[in-house]
Amino acid sequence: MADKVLIYSRFPKTMMARFAERFELLDTGGKPAQDVFSGNELAGIRALLTAGGSPLGAEAMDRLPKLGAIVCYGTGYDGVDLKAAAARKIAVGHSPGANAASVADIAMTLMLAATRRILIADQYVRSGDWASSRQSPMMRPQAGMPGRRIGVYGMGEIGRKIAARCAAFEAEVGYFSRTKHDLPYQYFPSLEALSDWCSVLMIAVRAGAETQHVVNADILKRLGEDGYVVNISRGSVIDEKALVAALSDKTIAGAGLDVYQEEPHAPDALTVLPNVVLSPHIGGHTLDSHVAMQNCVLANLTAFFAGRPLPHAVKTA
Amino acid sequence: MADKVLIYSRFPKTMMARFAERFELLDTGGKPAQDVFSGNELAGIRALLTAGGSPLGAEAMDRLPKLGAIVCYGTGYDGVDLKAAAARKIAVGHSPGANAASVADIAMTLMLAATRRILIADQYVRSGDWASSRQSPMMRPQAGMPGRRIGVYGMGEIGRKIAARCAAFEAEVGYFSRTKHDLPYQYFPSLEALSDWCSVLMIAVRAGAETQHVVNADILKRLGEDGYVVNISRGSVIDEKALVAALSDKTIAGAGLDVYQEEPHAPDALTVLPNVVLSPHIGGHTLDSHVAMQNCVLANLTAFFAGRPLPHAVKTA
Repeated sequence: MADKVLIYSRFPKTMMARFAERFELLDTGGKPAQDVFSGNELAGIRALLTAGGSPLGAEAMDRLPKLGAIVCYGTGYDGVDLKAAAARKIAVGHSPGANAASVADIAMTLMLAATRRILIADQYVRSGDWASSRQSPMMRPQAGMPGRRIGVYGMGEIGRKIAARCAAFEAEVGYFSRTKHDLPYQYFPSLEALSDWCSVLMIAVRAGAETQHVVNADILKRLGEDGYVVNISRGSVIDEKALVAALSDKTIAGAGLDVYQEEPHAPDALTVLPNVVLSPHIGGHTLDSHVAMQNCVLANLTAFFAGRPLPHAVKTA
Repeated sequence: MADKVLIYSRFPKTMMARFAERFELLDTGGKPAQDVFSGNELAGIRALLTAGGSPLGAEAMDRLPKLGAIVCYGTGYDGVDLKAAAARKIAVGHSPGANAASVADIAMTLMLAATRRILIADQYVRSGDWASSRQSPMMRPQAGMPGRRIGVYGMGEIGRKIAARCAAFEAEVGYFSRTKHDLPYQYFPSLEALSDWCSVLMIAVRAGAETQHVVNADILKRLGEDGYVVNISRGSVIDEKALVAALSDKTIAGAGLDVYQEEPHAPDALTVLPNVVLSPHIGGHTLDSHVAMQNCVLANLTAFFAGRPLPHAVKTA
């Protein structure tokens, strides 16, 4: 009989196909597990698969008394209460680096699309405004990439890939992270200092309680009226209300967002703005990235059910 | 009295502001010069400013008997009949390289926006389809950049900048140009061979009579169903009808276009397609690029009226 895996978050079925070949999946479709499965069914669950951002605390763990492994699809694990898991001897795994290039690429896509106003440009062509010479204030030339000061917040695998890509665009690259690395980019000792210096802020920090709303009204003001924010980390890092206000009153010029405070919802105040480019958390959403992430999930689950340690375990400090 | 310059193409007035400080501008607004100005007015014209793509042949030159300098705004000069100009001892100038980074950046923007389907992604968020979990076949994961084979057609200043940027995305880069260069990218001896190898074709070739419609149905078929075409050169390089057909019947996956056969018109058959990203010839349209191009124009016009050779003259083979 196949080992059972609880699918704790909402995932498209196509993404689960490879796991279904090896395991018996109990799919909650993102609903509370106890609403979908009986206590009896849940009592037997030893492993679950979750999206790292989905809240998964002590209470949820206690409804699964035999739970031994929490496997996150992707890099993030910010929704998982690591202390509660450790106290219950539940191993936590993820897919470190598997989607780094794909996520860095969506960061670049959002930055370029926002700064070069590609949504407006496309609409200008499709609407016929170009053909009829209609003037559009949104089509005014913007600052280009060469010489642009791009600040990368967080210098993990994704941050490094973003920095390398930005450097190829002849931009100046600076960064802030907890520790200074041996990298050919200017280091700033605080997010404030980085934001004073740069006009594009790329958020690539690992999200957690200590990064909650650190990109706030003050940081946005420091970016200035030519400033852009790109977020591919987690929605929680930005104070979303402050961002909407800064975008609406032109405190900053624009934003490119792949993540939101309450996914899959993007607030109406954001979706009506012309100076933002929005994507539905598709940073890791490429064929190669999915295969790499699935490989990590399969390796973690296979090791767990064989009684071995997770090969891609979350490293806790 | 200020020297007179005929503005031969349609340019936004804001782009002409710096020239108006130094010269008396006779602006045709893109209409035939003889419809806007009297024969007497045109008889005195010694220099004109044109967009390189605007047709400017022997007949137009003969209407300006004192014409001594044709200055192109931007890199291209494909609309200018160089032989006719040479026969009349008219110097031809342009802005070589001034917009190379800006144009390379729009090529990257279009490639990333098309391959990551950012227009569809943005609409998926804004429409509420994401929030309501509506499935979209257009949101299926696509191939990412790492390992992608990107073919650059043309290895001038823009082609080199595109290649360097693509390499930073961990893609494989190949190229075809008339001559093999000492560059760290694979050289292909023909456009056919390059198209067989790559899945993204970046058109960065200098346009002219010999490149007319060279990207045709055969080339597109070689790119294959995962293939993309990005054109930031001139619309004339692509057989636009063949491109629309290939995009409609899924011979290729998508395209990103900044240039069209008959600007400022993009054909309806193109503007209704969901798998294209369209921009209104804004490759060189950044603040820094405009300043650099204007510097070239001013240097050319100033030298001409002072009786010196053009510092940024078109080099004829």
